[in-house]
Amino acid sequence: MLIIGERINSSRERIAQAIKDRDTSLIQNEALAQVRCGADYIDVNAGMLLGEEGECLRWLVQVIQQVMDKPLCLDTANPDAAALVLQIHRGKAILNSITAERIRYGAMLPLIKKHGCKVIGLCMDASGIPSNAEGRVKIAGKIVEGLTSEGIPLDDIFIDPLVYPLSSDFESAIVVLDTIEQIRRSYTGVHIVCGLSNISFGLPLRKQLNEVFVVLAMQRGLDAAIVDPCDKQLMANIITTTVLMGKDEFCRNYIEAYRQGKLGDLG
Amino acid sequence: MLIIGERINSSRERIAQAIKDRDTSLIQNEALAQVRCGADYIDVNAGMLLGEEGECLRWLVQVIQQVMDKPLCLDTANPDAAALVLQIHRGKAILNSITAERIRYGAMLPLIKKHGCKVIGLCMDASGIPSNAEGRVKIAGKIVEGLTSEGIPLDDIFIDPLVYPLSSDFESAIVVLDTIEQIRRSYTGVHIVCGLSNISFGLPLRKQLNEVFVVLAMQRGLDAAIVDPCDKQLMANIITTTVLMGKDEFCRNYIEAYRQGKLGDLG
Repeated sequence: MLIIGERINSSRERIAQAIKDRDTSLIQNEALAQVRCGADYIDVNAGMLLGEEGECLRWLVQVIQQVMDKPLCLDTANPDAAALVLQIHRGKAILNSITAERIRYGAMLPLIKKHGCKVIGLCMDASGIPSNAEGRVKIAGKIVEGLTSEGIPLDDIFIDPLVYPLSSDFESAIVVLDTIEQIRRSYTGVHIVCGLSNISFGLPLRKQLNEVFVVLAMQRGLDAAIVDPCDKQLMANIITTTVLMGKDEFCRNYIEAYRQGKLGDLG
Repeated sequence: MLIIGERINSSRERIAQAIKDRDTSLIQNEALAQVRCGADYIDVNAGMLLGEEGECLRWLVQVIQQVMDKPLCLDTANPDAAALVLQIHRGKAILNSITAERIRYGAMLPLIKKHGCKVIGLCMDASGIPSNAEGRVKIAGKIVEGLTSEGIPLDDIFIDPLVYPLSSDFESAIVVLDTIEQIRRSYTGVHIVCGLSNISFGLPLRKQLNEVFVVLAMQRGLDAAIVDPCDKQLMANIITTTVLMGKDEFCRNYIEAYRQGKLGDLG
């Protein structure tokens, strides 16, 4: 399971302020903490800083890559901002995200090819986000086939089925889970990623919902998640799901995680 | 999800002693606590008290039914013990269990028909427990078809796929999960039940494994579980899985459970 740490996001007031203040140590500490908790990638988002998004993202990438070698997940819908940061990013970034909308797709594609980065494709097109799994899978197919026909390897492509809050539609999780399973069956080798925490928006005990949702999604084929890696129960559930799915030979990783205190005082 | 409380089991030293001592209040308190935590049935097992199993079970049923109206899950492989307790049990018990072994099946069937009780059928026959899902599903089919041909309604039949510890075979959970899914597809209307906690035997943080395993099993079609209902995180995970599976209209039960403190201080 590939973990993308979501904490450096300008929709969090504390992060937006730190970006405005160019508070290097706060950002570096947020990044380092997420890596310590098990993040493989650090997502950076400056979308709330209108008009300065590209510059802010560039600063985020610079200060984070001063203290670590991990690649980043560049969270922007803006091709200009993406172009700016891809120039200075070291290693193989994930561009988060493209859609099947002609203009956004067309503007991002040359960047992906030029920099050889990975990319997250959202299951939406010019008509929006389909309400059912079939519609989302169709868009996923369009994106996967489009990108691979341009020479981008399957292993560099992540599909995000897109999660709506349960509080707005109590069947919204099923649509996501069915979408994941159908994509997994149709496109072996592609990655499936989710910003999971949207599922719990507007409901009490959000962490409890997120922690169980990741288990269900993994069983259906999710192999990457944009999450808070500092949520210990969530990370413990990911490790535990992996062993229960028979993907942890002789339970070695589970036992090792236990010894390292990663499963914590949960027993 | 139907919850069968597992705590009154003579394999627990404290319970075996209480049965030997005829400690009425300890047993009654264990039963009442499980009902308060959400048990629909109370499992009673006296299998460790060799030579006195029937008598002990009879005493358990009597003292528990003095303080509650819940039906019990009579956990015995011994047809004589089962006959003894079914005589005095009030309401519709679950007989736990039969197998596809000719002798045990033949001895239990008349009791099930006479008392109109529910029954748990284990996926094993005279050759033992098949190591793969296909073998277990085949036995499940034999039991389901045998019982229904005797007039026992599907709704009274529970199939237990049987759980081996991950510590003895790190792929043992997959076999169970696949068995559950295949039975669910083949026999709509039959119940599928599991003694879940066996999965974690021999591994650290057993509760963590049980709590995640129940989520995976529910997604595959499990609709009943023999568990410790006083494990608050496990019960919270069951409620949360139900809402995520779209089976909790407008999230009403989830929100109500939150208000009642059943999801606890987990958020």
